[in-house]
Amino acid sequence: MSIWFTEKQTEHFGITARITKTYVSEKTDYQQLDMVQTAEFGNMLLLDGMVMTTEKDEFVYHEMVAHVPLHTHPNPEHVLVVGGGDGGVIREILKHPEVKTATLVEIDGKVIEYSKQYLPTIAGALDDERVTVKVADGFMHIAESDSVYDVIMVDSTEPVGPAVNLFTKGFYEGISKALKEDGLFVAQTDNPWFQKSLIKNAFQDIRETFPVTKLYTANIPTYPSGLWTFTMGSKKHDPLDVKDERFHDLDTSYYTPAIHRAAFALPKFVEELTGK
Amino acid sequence: MSIWFTEKQTEHFGITARITKTYVSEKTDYQQLDMVQTAEFGNMLLLDGMVMTTEKDEFVYHEMVAHVPLHTHPNPEHVLVVGGGDGGVIREILKHPEVKTATLVEIDGKVIEYSKQYLPTIAGALDDERVTVKVADGFMHIAESDSVYDVIMVDSTEPVGPAVNLFTKGFYEGISKALKEDGLFVAQTDNPWFQKSLIKNAFQDIRETFPVTKLYTANIPTYPSGLWTFTMGSKKHDPLDVKDERFHDLDTSYYTPAIHRAAFALPKFVEELTGK
Repeated sequence: MSIWFTEKQTEHFGITARITKTYVSEKTDYQQLDMVQTAEFGNMLLLDGMVMTTEKDEFVYHEMVAHVPLHTHPNPEHVLVVGGGDGGVIREILKHPEVKTATLVEIDGKVIEYSKQYLPTIAGALDDERVTVKVADGFMHIAESDSVYDVIMVDSTEPVGPAVNLFTKGFYEGISKALKEDGLFVAQTDNPWFQKSLIKNAFQDIRETFPVTKLYTANIPTYPSGLWTFTMGSKKHDPLDVKDERFHDLDTSYYTPAIHRAAFALPKFVEELTGK
Repeated sequence: MSIWFTEKQTEHFGITARITKTYVSEKTDYQQLDMVQTAEFGNMLLLDGMVMTTEKDEFVYHEMVAHVPLHTHPNPEHVLVVGGGDGGVIREILKHPEVKTATLVEIDGKVIEYSKQYLPTIAGALDDERVTVKVADGFMHIAESDSVYDVIMVDSTEPVGPAVNLFTKGFYEGISKALKEDGLFVAQTDNPWFQKSLIKNAFQDIRETFPVTKLYTANIPTYPSGLWTFTMGSKKHDPLDVKDERFHDLDTSYYTPAIHRAAFALPKFVEELTGK
C-alpha cells in the first residue's frame, strides 16, 4: 500500500507526498500537529495540515531568515525568535560569533518536544548554552520587552490559528519597541502567487513603523508556489549597504553574500506589491 | 464532482490541480498531449503528463528564456526557437526591436495547433510577419544550419521522449555551428532539487563548447520544485556585462534589468553543480 498526504495550498491546487511513516498526529492546545516521514523530503513537520519544515529543504528558510538580518546588523548580540519551535532559525543564529544570547519564544511546547525527537539535525541547537527557550505567547513577550534585542525574527505559521496576532500593525509596533535603537527584524510573509494582499498589507504596516523596509525572496520547494517572501523592517541599517568584509564565511547550503544581495531584486509582479 | 489531476514530479512527490474542463487528450505522433482548464492556473498544456505551460504563470518562463539572452547580445537580428510550439518565447522575442526574423522549429504540429486554439494569449504571436514556423526536428534543423543565428533558445520538454537528443554534447556543438561568430544560446535545464546530474552534465557539456557558460534561475510555481534553471552558452558576450543603456523598457511581469543580473546569483547548492 502506498500512502500519500496532500496539502491543498489553495482551494484548487496542492502538493502531494508519499508518506512512509507517521510518528505523531495530535491535537495540541493550539493546533493539529503531524510529524511524518516522507520518501522525498525526509521527516516533515505539519501544523494544521500545512508543511512547516522538512529535513531536505529546511536549510533554505532557516538560512535566509537568519543570515540576511544578522549580516545587516553590525553587531547582533541579542537575538529573539518568535515562533520557530523546530529550532532551525536558532541553529543558524548560533553560527554568528557576535551572538551572546538567542531567545526562542514558542507558544506550543509540543512543537519543540517533537522537533527535538524527530528533527534532531534541526532542533539540536536548542540545547546550546547561549539559548533560552520560553514556551509563551510571542505577542505578549514582545509587548513586555523594551529596547532589549538587536535582531528579531518572526518565524510564524500562516495568519490562521495561533499566529493571527503576528500579522498586525500593533505587533510590528511592539517589535519596534522591543528592539534597541538600531535594531531590525524580519518576518516570513508568505508567497506572492496566492497571498498578494497579505504581502501588500504587511509591507505597508511595516513601512509605517520602520524607516527601512525591504522585501526579499527565496525558493522553498515544499512551500506554496516555491517562492517565499520575507519582509525586513529596520530602524537604521540597510541590508543592501552591507560591506563585503562584514560577511562571515558561513557553513551554508543556500545563503551566500551574492544571494544576500540578489534576494532583494524582485520579480516585477512582486515589486508591485511593495507599492513601487 | 471535483476532478483533480496529479503530476508526479518525482516517484514520491507531485502537484495536484483541480480541473474544470478537458479540451484535448490525444496521443500525437510524438507524445501524449492534454489541454485542460484548471481552476487555479487557467488553461494548461501537458505533454506526457508533465505541465508545460499555464496561462497564469507562463510569463516567468517565457520572459526569462527570451530577454536574458536577447539583452546579452548587442544586436539580435535572427533568432531561433527549438521546441516552444506554444509560441510564448516567440511572443517575448518580438518585443525586441532589433529582431528581424524569428524562426520556430517544433517537432509536433499538434502542440502549435492546440496552443493557437486554447492558449491564444500565448500562441497569438505565431502569426506575426517576422515569424517563420517549421514543423520539423529541431536537432536536424540545427545540424543543417551554418552561421545563421544570433541567438538560439532551446525550449524543450524534459529529456524523455522527443527531446532526448536535445540534451547531448552533439546538439550543443551543432548549436555552436548554427550560431554566428558572436552568437549565444540558452537552454532550459530543469530544476536543481530533483535533477542535479542533468544540470551538472549539461553545464559541463556546454562549457566544453562555449567560452562563456552561465547558469541562471527563475521561480515557476507549476514546475518541479518551483526553481527552474537555464544554461547559457555564449561565444563572446557575457550576460553580466550588459550595460544599463542596453536594456529595453519591456512590458513584462517578471523580468527587469535587476532580475537579469540577480538571476545569476546562485544558491550555494546550485552553484556547486557548475563545478564551483
